[in-house]
Amino acid sequence: MFLFDIASNDQTSYPEELPAIFRRYGSDIGIALREGLAGRQSQVYQMLRYSMGWTTIDGASVNVLSGKALRPTLCIFACEATGGDVREALPAAVSLEFIHNFSLIHDDVQDRDETRHHRPTLWKVWGNPKAILAGNILWAIADISLGRLLDKGVGLKKTLRIMQLLNRAHMEMIEGQYLDISFEGRSDVTLPNYMDMISKKTGAFMRSALAVGALIGSGDASIVRAFIECGRSLGLVFQIRDDILGIWGDESITGKPVGSDIRQKKNSLPLLYAMSKTKGADKELMSNVYQNKVLNDDDVASIMDVLAKVNAKEYSERLASKHRLKAIEALSKVKMTTSVIEEMDEVAMFLQLRKH
Amino acid sequence: MFLFDIASNDQTSYPEELPAIFRRYGSDIGIALREGLAGRQSQVYQMLRYSMGWTTIDGASVNVLSGKALRPTLCIFACEATGGDVREALPAAVSLEFIHNFSLIHDDVQDRDETRHHRPTLWKVWGNPKAILAGNILWAIADISLGRLLDKGVGLKKTLRIMQLLNRAHMEMIEGQYLDISFEGRSDVTLPNYMDMISKKTGAFMRSALAVGALIGSGDASIVRAFIECGRSLGLVFQIRDDILGIWGDESITGKPVGSDIRQKKNSLPLLYAMSKTKGADKELMSNVYQNKVLNDDDVASIMDVLAKVNAKEYSERLASKHRLKAIEALSKVKMTTSVIEEMDEVAMFLQLRKH
Repeated sequence: MFLFDIASNDQTSYPEELPAIFRRYGSDIGIALREGLAGRQSQVYQMLRYSMGWTTIDGASVNVLSGKALRPTLCIFACEATGGDVREALPAAVSLEFIHNFSLIHDDVQDRDETRHHRPTLWKVWGNPKAILAGNILWAIADISLGRLLDKGVGLKKTLRIMQLLNRAHMEMIEGQYLDISFEGRSDVTLPNYMDMISKKTGAFMRSALAVGALIGSGDASIVRAFIECGRSLGLVFQIRDDILGIWGDESITGKPVGSDIRQKKNSLPLLYAMSKTKGADKELMSNVYQNKVLNDDDVASIMDVLAKVNAKEYSERLASKHRLKAIEALSKVKMTTSVIEEMDEVAMFLQLRKH
Repeated sequence: MFLFDIASNDQTSYPEELPAIFRRYGSDIGIALREGLAGRQSQVYQMLRYSMGWTTIDGASVNVLSGKALRPTLCIFACEATGGDVREALPAAVSLEFIHNFSLIHDDVQDRDETRHHRPTLWKVWGNPKAILAGNILWAIADISLGRLLDKGVGLKKTLRIMQLLNRAHMEMIEGQYLDISFEGRSDVTLPNYMDMISKKTGAFMRSALAVGALIGSGDASIVRAFIECGRSLGLVFQIRDDILGIWGDESITGKPVGSDIRQKKNSLPLLYAMSKTKGADKELMSNVYQNKVLNDDDVASIMDVLAKVNAKEYSERLASKHRLKAIEALSKVKMTTSVIEEMDEVAMFLQLRKH
């Protein structure tokens, strides 16, 4: 059974394309996640099960495509790749996924997004106060989950180190989210500003997922560092792809119209690249359009034209490709086995080419 | 120097009445809290320093009466009372106060409260998204602070136990906040429901503050249990007083008009007591009034009359008094010294009679 079975009416062919490691750990992760929210009947836990994609708004069981469980999968993979027992990493994997979902719940409140995975968001159904609290409870549950590392045989010292590592990642992620919000509507954001922001917002937990796995599996400092390096690059691949999909994604798959990020005036990579590359009339056009309070279809189309002129999509794709190779290189350097390298390559390629 | 000096235009005589332990630890706690947010210049940390009462909206230094630092003070007191070194408890004390402030920041977002301590709330100044994130960062900083227990000489095992204890308290607090929100506007909430809610919302961190202090100071299981018992009762004293002030508080001190909780249709102790004690016309009056969408001055006055008839204020005061005595009794049982008992009595009395 796959972690997130697709509801029969779901048209995407998405999970078939998932790399092998998602299929290998999916069931274990799914069970551990459900255990993490099991046995609690109050409304807030119903909200959380809904947010995980396990139930309808009314609490009836359902399986929808709710997420890839990317971070837990990376964590467990790193554990196994470095010689560890997969089961030892499960409490950390659960914690990573709950923290990720906490951040999505709060993101939706902050951005006033009304749907996620084609379903109404928590605040849209239950209101802001309950959605904020539901997110906070999920964070608390994530913290508590880490205590179970001890039950799995991870020693005191390592458990504490993992807690500290994830606490810091958590702070970095929120700092990145804060930077992201601060950038909106500003016209002076540079590419380095942007790289710093995404390294915190998306990168912190990607690095930590691999670091924690490698810590449990091996604990050798140079190996842990290599996995952190790998995670740094993977995070960039992931985020750059997000930015590409936010502008050129297929609406029937992403659920967002073409040019979505432009309409929201997000300072994403292709836009910042174009701003740095255009001159004269095109640069003026971009600045002028972004000064409009609301962008209409023509505004979006004219920006898309400028992006095409400077090959912003191709630039972004090349950059993603470069970081994909760096991710693999990091593991090669510490002499990981061929099968580990191949599986990580499959993951990196998937992150670079995903349609969703 | 006292932890929170009063701005010269502040009219309250409040800190002079504070028990001795607030004066004894105030300076150490104040320094440790400021260190916890030191050296960070980005806007979100300016927001946090403002929320702590250290700066104006523009970041200029100022000292306003921002809080009693009740939980950190209790934590350090328990540490000292059980034979520990006050400095060892400081990282936990900082964590407790930051978590408390995180919850206030989010509370204000959830309740749409525009002022706190007579100043605009974070969301009112910086908007919801940034206020939510600022709260989350403070939580992350609180978690990180606990790691410093190791630097202070608290062992690995105890540090981990304290982390787990506070994680669980945190979850309980949020569950209590969720219950509190769920109760609003409902007419079927009972006194036991209410006691369960406040034991989580307010009680969890009051118990934990004392438990953590006693754990660091002594570690003896029966002593830790006694401090938890004491905290349970203190939490009730604190919350009951809150409920009394929410209806009969002096507006010039609390900043809220008389009958404030009635107007907000909060299910607080005096109201639940009155609901359980009234019959016939009075009961009908209460039910009818609470069914109005908005309560006017006459509605509030008529409910106040019913409360007076059943002596709801006196009942609440008696209940607070009863729990104050239980708090002291818990410490007497484990043979704390006379000076410890006397100082705790002073704190409990203060919590029972505070005007703010």
